[in-house]
Formats: sequence, C-alpha cells, structure tokens
Amino acid sequence: MSGFFKSRWVEAPGVKELDPAQLAPGFKAGTAHCGLKGGGKTDVGLIACEAEEVTSAILLTRNASSAAPVRVCRDRCDRGAIRAAAVNAGNANAETGEQGYADAVAMVEEAARQLGLAPEAVAVAETGVIGVPLPIDAVLAGIDEAAGALSEANGAAFSEAIMTTDRWPKRCTLRVGGVTLSAQAKGGGMIQPGFATLLCFVQTDAVVADPDAALRAASAASFERITVDGQMSTNDTVLLQATGAAGAPLPDGLLDAVLLQLALEVVADGEGSSRVGRVQVGGAASPTEAERVARAIANSPLVKTALFGRDPNWGRIAQAAGMALAGEDLEEIGADSIDAAELGGEGDEAEIEISLGRGDHATHVYFSDLGYEYVRINADYTT
Amino acid sequence: MSGFFKSRWVEAPGVKELDPAQLAPGFKAGTAHCGLKGGGKTDVGLIACEAEEVTSAILLTRNASSAAPVRVCRDRCDRGAIRAAAVNAGNANAETGEQGYADAVAMVEEAARQLGLAPEAVAVAETGVIGVPLPIDAVLAGIDEAAGALSEANGAAFSEAIMTTDRWPKRCTLRVGGVTLSAQAKGGGMIQPGFATLLCFVQTDAVVADPDAALRAASAASFERITVDGQMSTNDTVLLQATGAAGAPLPDGLLDAVLLQLALEVVADGEGSSRVGRVQVGGAASPTEAERVARAIANSPLVKTALFGRDPNWGRIAQAAGMALAGEDLEEIGADSIDAAELGGEGDEAEIEISLGRGDHATHVYFSDLGYEYVRINADYTT
Repeated sequence: MSGFFKSRWVEAPGVKELDPAQLAPGFKAGTAHCGLKGGGKTDVGLIACEAEEVTSAILLTRNASSAAPVRVCRDRCDRGAIRAAAVNAGNANAETGEQGYADAVAMVEEAARQLGLAPEAVAVAETGVIGVPLPIDAVLAGIDEAAGALSEANGAAFSEAIMTTDRWPKRCTLRVGGVTLSAQAKGGGMIQPGFATLLCFVQTDAVVADPDAALRAASAASFERITVDGQMSTNDTVLLQATGAAGAPLPDGLLDAVLLQLALEVVADGEGSSRVGRVQVGGAASPTEAERVARAIANSPLVKTALFGRDPNWGRIAQAAGMALAGEDLEEIGADSIDAAELGGEGDEAEIEISLGRGDHATHVYFSDLGYEYVRINADYTT
Repeated sequence: MSGFFKSRWVEAPGVKELDPAQLAPGFKAGTAHCGLKGGGKTDVGLIACEAEEVTSAILLTRNASSAAPVRVCRDRCDRGAIRAAAVNAGNANAETGEQGYADAVAMVEEAARQLGLAPEAVAVAETGVIGVPLPIDAVLAGIDEAAGALSEANGAAFSEAIMTTDRWPKRCTLRVGGVTLSAQAKGGGMIQPGFATLLCFVQTDAVVADPDAALRAASAASFERITVDGQMSTNDTVLLQATGAAGAPLPDGLLDAVLLQLALEVVADGEGSSRVGRVQVGGAASPTEAERVARAIANSPLVKTALFGRDPNWGRIAQAAGMALAGEDLEEIGADSIDAAELGGEGDEAEIEISLGRGDHATHVYFSDLGYEYVRINADYTT
C-alpha cells in the first residue's frame, strides 16, 4: 500500500476535522430538486457568502468548446469578488448555443435577485450531459427553492446536489490555526483538468490576500496532477471564496492538502474506477518531457487495463514512454529502469516508477484504472 | 452503412483477386511452430525472394523504446535490397536488452545461412509480449523448419503465423496490369502507427523504381490514418519487396488501395473491436490542427464507448475537439457543425463529421470502438 490516497488531511498536526455539513463561518448553502437527475435527487445548489468583503478566485476550463456557464463566468463575473454560485448537476449546458448562454445568464440573475446581490457577484457552474437544452424554468424554480433553504449546515447537502456519476460526495470542513475551511468537489468522467476538476467549491473565513495565486498553486499540485480518462471537460470550474473574518491567514499547505485530497477522491471515484495508480517519472531532460511521459503512461489504455487486471506488465510502461518520446532514443530503458511491481499487487493503490536517465526533471500523475464498469457507464450515458 | 470498409479492392476495374495462398511470382514463404503461441499454432514465418535484383523499402516504428528487431533492421539491413524476412509472433523481443539484440541478430544470421544470403539482405520482425526473453534456440529451430518448407503457395500460412490477438488473417493477392501483388499484415492492440501497422509484408513482381517513396506515400494514406488504442507499438514494421520481373510498373493506386484495405482490416479486427468509426474533420486552420482534432476524437474513450454503445452522443465529439484546441475558441461549434447520427445507427461502421469553421484543411482517421472485450483482452495479457 503506497498510502498516497489513504493519508488523509486529518492526520496533519493541529488539524481538526469538523462535520462536513458545517460550512466555513459566513457561508450558507441551499439545495433543491428540479428533475435534471432521476430518482428525486437534489440537482440544484446555491452557495452564498454573507460577508460583503469577500475575496475570491475562479479557474475555468481551457477547453475550446467551453460550456455556457463557463463563458458567462468569463464574460460577466467580477472574479475577485464572487459572493455566490448557482450550480446544477445533470445538464452541462454545453454546446447549447445562444439559448444556453441566455439560460446561464438567467440562472445568475435569478440567484442575484434572490440573494440581493449584483449579478457580477454571482458565478454559475453546471455539469452533466452535453448538448441538451436546459429546462430553464425548472432550474430557476430550483434556485428559488434553494435560496429559501439556505443554511450554514448544508455543506454536505450541497456536495450531494452537485454529484453526477460520482459514487460518493467529496467534501470536508477543517479547522486549524484559528480559521475554518470547507470544500466540496465532484468528479466522474471527462476528467483531465487543465487546472481543475469538473466542479470544486472552497470556502474559508481566513484572510486570503491573493486568492488567485493561492488557488492556481494549489490546483497545479492537485487537480492538474490527475487523470481519469484523459478528457478535458467543457465545464471545469473551481471557486475559492474567503471572507477574512477570522483575521488570520490560511495555514501554509492547508489549501494544497485539501485540494490534493479532493483530487485523489475524484480519481478514486473516477467513472468505473476500482484502483488508483500513481506514476512517478524521473530522469527527464525537461519538465515538459517529464509531463509528456507521465501523461502518456497515465492515459494509456494498456497501462490502465493492466492496473485493473493486476498485471505487472512493465513493458507497456516502456512502450508508452517510448511513444511519448517518439524519435528519441530510449533503448537503454529496461526492467532496471521501471518498477511496476505494485501494478500486480493486492492493494487498491499502485505506485509505478520509471527513470528515463536523460536528466534531472521529475513529475507524477495520479490515474484511475480502465475496467468493464467504465465501458458500461459510458456506452449508454445519454440514451 | 458508410461502406468505407466493405468496399474491397476487388471491385476496382481490372483487378483480379487470386487465392491469397499464392504469393507474387518469385516469392516463397515457410512457417513453423516453435511454442511462442499456445495451442500448437504456427508462430515463425520466413518470406524470401528468389530474384537477386530485388528493390525494397522498410518502415520502422519511431517509438523511442524500439524493439530489438527494429534496431537490428535499422543498424544492419541494406534497406533498399532486402531479400528475405524472418518473423516470429508471440514474443516482441522488446525491452530485452543486449541479449534481445543478440537474439535478433542470430535470427537474421540463421535465416541468411539457410537461404544462402548475406545477413544484410535479411530483415527481422517480431510481435507479441514485451519484456520477455526470447527462447532463441526454439526460434532458430523454427527458422530452419520454415526454410525447409518454403513454397510459393504459403502466403495464407504466412499471414496466419504472424497473428497474435488478431481474430482473422489480413492478406490478399491481386493481379492487375500484368503484375501481381501479395500482402500480409497483422494488427491487434498497441495500434496507432507513426507510419505502419504492427507488421505488414508486401511482395510484387512489378518494377518499383523508388520503393521507399511508394511505401511512404501508401502508408501515409492508410496505416497513418488508423488507430485502435492510440498506442504506438515498439515493433511496427512494414516491408515492401519488388522483383521487377513482370517488366511493368505497379498500376497507379494499387499499393495505396491494398494498404488501405489492410489498415481497415486492422481497425475492424482491433483488440475487442465490434464497430469501426471514421471521423472526417473539415474547416481546420491547418493540416496540423485537422490531425490533432481527428486524433483527439478517434482516441477519446468517451467517443469510442459511444461507438460501442450505439449512442449518438455528439457532445463528446465537441468536447474532444475543444480539448484538442484548448485555449482557442470553438464556441460556435454546435449540433449544426457535427453529424454523429451514425454513431447511434445499426451499422457496423459509423461515419462522423465535424466542421470547425476555421479554415480549409481536412483529414480523417479510422478508429475502433472501446467495449468490454478490449478490457477483457488487456486486463490479463501476460499473466
């Protein structure tokens, strides 16, 4: 057992894990059911900050086919002062044209009206099926209902409302150094963020002077280091909000630890995932080369099926590395340069290592396996 | 039914399809069983040209972790005058270090001795599991046995000896314009050739003045346009040999048609494949952009599972295109720009089209689906 997933944030010194239902002070959430997901599940969520002096940062997908909510956030949000976010799960509102854009704007405006905020203080995020028009009236009614249900104790309910194919909610509320930080994320498929997971929300009462820098750094070491299926989503969004009411800064490393844990949960709960791998690439000639090799291995269907099948097939790792460096010469790579024993082990995590012997650069990527369940989920998603 | 796979070369005017057992005049093949594959199947093949004035060309994988036989061909072959090739299936002799290289040299030297040729006139090709030492004594005995069995009527037997996870052999013998052309290929997994399929052998009695140019052009339009799992092999090799004895050139387009047909068979018989897709990308700003988008769609596990599940999920095509062009702006792409209806159709082929509206460049890629069988085959290949 490598322990990179099992090591939880609560083991860090001084960190107290609170009930994840409890949001950071000053934040409230509400949820509603509007019919986007089957079975009466909640599918609309609202998260709002009471403090007027909030600082914030938001990261949005770089996918060129970005969804309407992403474009609305990009075009209309005051990104450093986001007070609230309106979210739905079950419909991505992506590839929905001008109507989709208007629908996302309507969500922002309805949430702003209900909360008494300027529209530019409200973000919007959506996740689910692509290319299906949003049933906007139902969603707006859901926003109204969620606004009526706002509570400081709705963190867990919010994390459940944003789920799609997730098997479990990803969330935490931590208290350390006089500040509180709460976070909620959802994953599923279409996960190889350029910077973020599909959706992630982080709230704190700490003072975060440069939320954009803090969020970028923490995402670079967490959401940017994972892949489920190599597919960058149209809807990736991560939002950090800080009130500063606690009068103390975030302890060093706390945001990084929380985002890393949420990212690892997204991998462990990737569509059809049964095991998590971590590939460590060393000896690369450049950071770019290390990244290219690590992604080639982590996204190789042959490596991912070997992880699923507990097959210590190190030749596939050599092949994927060689493909990433096509035209170069890796002929000295062999069994001595690759440790893939854990691929074949009993654990639900497997760490594999490859040393390229070409320089001093290194990186790592966390990835899920590829098994029957991924096929089952994705062969019949819309129909 | 798009018909891009069903349209066979034999429908071209003037082309006569011969028994694929029959090799082009002047060529002989032999096979043997040496125990690399289970069930008493043949796994060693020898193909030899009697004419001394043969012209030839060979394309080898660009994978940086190239296999020993690839390196031996690169280092030691007189690439324009290859008389014979020694082949085994069941062991790739890749990532096998100095011993693997010595074993591949021994295969060349044994075949040369048996055939009375200089070693530089003999190519070697191997396919199968990576990282396992070759049982060289058994393979050399197999080469001896194959040399003793050489016959002009062993084309079909040769195409069967080179199979690994292939479900059917890929081969043809055609006569047109006074010349004969025979060809054999094998596919399986680890198929996204930089230039060629895993293994392909082509023989003709036509005059081929510039076999390298002919082979490169035909491969560019066939093997370079397919993908099974996005994985470049360590062992890709395609060999063209021409005696010129017929005194006539290859009819225009014949080599291209044969290699395209073999490439399409490799896709249709890709590991676990049940349907073949063809993605046509138009309106790209450059050839590179068209290629990047086409590969992103053809290798997307979400598109491939949709092909398997007959799910006309055009949103995944927009997502993959947007990922390929991350940082650009594809926001005008929508249902009008994408035709994915055949994904959901009854046929065993599906043609999908996307128009990017950014320029005049276009390309296409053929790809297989991703279903349970790919997982089953690859989750337990070595163990």
